[in-house]
Amino acid sequence: MTNLPAGVFSPVLTPFHEDLTPDRERFVALCQKLIDEGCDGLVPFGTTSEANSLSIEEREDLLEALVEGGMDAGGLIVGTGLAAIPDTVRLTRHAVGLGCAGVLMLPPFYYKGMSDEGLFAAYAEVIERVADDRLRVYLYHIPKVSGVAITPGLIGKLRDAFPDTVIGIKDSSGDWDNTRMLLEDFPGLQVFPGSELIMLDAMRLGAVGCITATANVNAQGLARLYAGWKEEGAEALQEAASSVRRAVQSQAMVPALKAIIARRDGDDGWLTLRPPFVGLDESQTNALFAALEEAGF
Amino acid sequence: MTNLPAGVFSPVLTPFHEDLTPDRERFVALCQKLIDEGCDGLVPFGTTSEANSLSIEEREDLLEALVEGGMDAGGLIVGTGLAAIPDTVRLTRHAVGLGCAGVLMLPPFYYKGMSDEGLFAAYAEVIERVADDRLRVYLYHIPKVSGVAITPGLIGKLRDAFPDTVIGIKDSSGDWDNTRMLLEDFPGLQVFPGSELIMLDAMRLGAVGCITATANVNAQGLARLYAGWKEEGAEALQEAASSVRRAVQSQAMVPALKAIIARRDGDDGWLTLRPPFVGLDESQTNALFAALEEAGF
Repeated sequence: MTNLPAGVFSPVLTPFHEDLTPDRERFVALCQKLIDEGCDGLVPFGTTSEANSLSIEEREDLLEALVEGGMDAGGLIVGTGLAAIPDTVRLTRHAVGLGCAGVLMLPPFYYKGMSDEGLFAAYAEVIERVADDRLRVYLYHIPKVSGVAITPGLIGKLRDAFPDTVIGIKDSSGDWDNTRMLLEDFPGLQVFPGSELIMLDAMRLGAVGCITATANVNAQGLARLYAGWKEEGAEALQEAASSVRRAVQSQAMVPALKAIIARRDGDDGWLTLRPPFVGLDESQTNALFAALEEAGF
Repeated sequence: MTNLPAGVFSPVLTPFHEDLTPDRERFVALCQKLIDEGCDGLVPFGTTSEANSLSIEEREDLLEALVEGGMDAGGLIVGTGLAAIPDTVRLTRHAVGLGCAGVLMLPPFYYKGMSDEGLFAAYAEVIERVADDRLRVYLYHIPKVSGVAITPGLIGKLRDAFPDTVIGIKDSSGDWDNTRMLLEDFPGLQVFPGSELIMLDAMRLGAVGCITATANVNAQGLARLYAGWKEEGAEALQEAASSVRRAVQSQAMVPALKAIIARRDGDDGWLTLRPPFVGLDESQTNALFAALEEAGF
C-alpha cells in the first residue's frame, strides 16, 4: 500500500467543440498544464467534468487520449460510477486496464432511498465482475448532487469485505462534521475532502490531500497549501486558497471555471458547456471577475 | 394527431436471470400477458422497470425481443431519457426506428438545480439530433426519484418550440395539484398520471389514461376502471383499484410487484432484482400479502 495517490487532485473540466463533441486537444492540454502547475494528479470525469453528460464511449476516448498523450496513468483517479452496474464495470475495467491509480466511484444514483445493503450489493457486484487485483476504489460521497449518500455503515461493510480494494473516499458533502467523522472513525481510509475550504483542518486529522474543482484554475495556490500545511504560515496559505474558492463559487461552479479559463487563455472555445449546463450571462460573468479581483486572484 | 396512445399503460417490470442478466423470455411473456389482461399499451423502461439499472445495449436488446416477439410497436411508449445527451439520442432513435408510438423522456438527471433554460436546451438538442418526424415525446416528471422537476415553464417552452413532438407528460409527482395544473393549463397536452389513486379525478379533467406500476399485477382492475370511468359505479371501480394500490405500496414498490408475480406464477425467478434494489424479507413479504388479502386482491 505504498505510493498511494496523495496531494492536490483536479477533477478536470471537459472542453467541448461548438458541436458539443468533446475536444481531445484542449482536454489533454489542460491536463498537462495542471500537472505542470503543481497538481499531484487528476480526476478525469468527476462532477465538475460534466462527466455525467458524457457517453461511455466519449469517456473512454478522452482517457485514451490522455494516456496516449503521455500522462502518467499512475496519477489518475478516474470517475467510473454510473447508474447501471454493467456500465460501471465497463468503465472501471477500462481505467484499470490503462494502469490508472484508482477509480472514483459514485453509487448507483438514479434510484433514491436504497438501503446500505442494496448499495453494498451494487459495489460488490462491480468489484467482483471487474475481478482485477489492481483495482483501487475511492467512494464518491456527493449527496447533494447524486442524491445517494455513502453512509458510515456502507463504508464499514465495504472496508470489511474489500479492505485492499475500497481504500478511500472523496467527501464532497460540504459538511466538516462528516469529513471529521471519516478521518476519526475509519483509520487507514484515504480521505480526500472535496473542497479546499477545510483542507488544512482535514490534513491535520490525516486527510491525504484534496480533490477540488478549483484546482482547474488555482493549482498553484493549492499546491502551495499542500506543500506548506505543516509549516508556519499555513493559515495564510489556507486563507488565500479559500478566498479564491469563495469567489469562484459565488457563481455556478462549472460555468465559472470555464469562464475563468476562457478569459485567462483568450480562448472562447472554453465557454461551451453541454446542456443541461448553461454559461454565465454577462452580469454573472462580471460579478465573477469582480469577486476574483477582490480576492486578489 | 389521431390514434394517440390512451388508456392503461404498464411500465413493465424487467425480469433477470440469477446472474443478473435480463431475461428476454420472461419479459416478452409478461408483456404479452399484460396486453391480454387489458392493458392498452406498455412502457418498457420506466422507473418501475429498473431501467436505470440497465445498460443501453440491454435496453435495445429487450425492446427488439419484444417487437420481434410480435408486440405491436404502436402500443409502446419507451423510456429513453438518460443523463447524457448522446445516450438519450441513441435510445430514442432506436425506439423511433422500431416504430414505437412514443418515448418517455426523463430530463438529464444527474446534475441538480439546473435552469429551465438548460433543461430546455438538453431536450431540444435530443429532438434536433434525432431529427425524425415520427418522434413523439412524453416528458417524465418524477422529481422524488430523478431529482429534476419538469416545471410549467419548461413545458411551455417545449410546447412552443416543438408542438408536434412534445405531446405529453407522465406526472409521477404524486401531487394532485400538479396533475390538475397540467390538465387545466396545458390544453392538448396528453397527460398520464403516474398513479391510479387519482385516475378518475384526472380522467374527468381530460387525462388520457394512466401509466402505473401496479398495472403489472392489476391490469384487469385498471382496465375495468378505464372502461367504466364515465359510467355509474365508477367510484366503486376507483376504490377497488386504489385499495390494491395502497396494499402494494405498503412495501417497496418494485420488490413488492416482483414478489406478487413470483407467487402468482409459482416462479421464484421473478424474485431477482438488480442492485441497488433488494428483495423483500420474509416479514415484509408476509405483510404485503396480508395487506393484499385485506384489500380483497
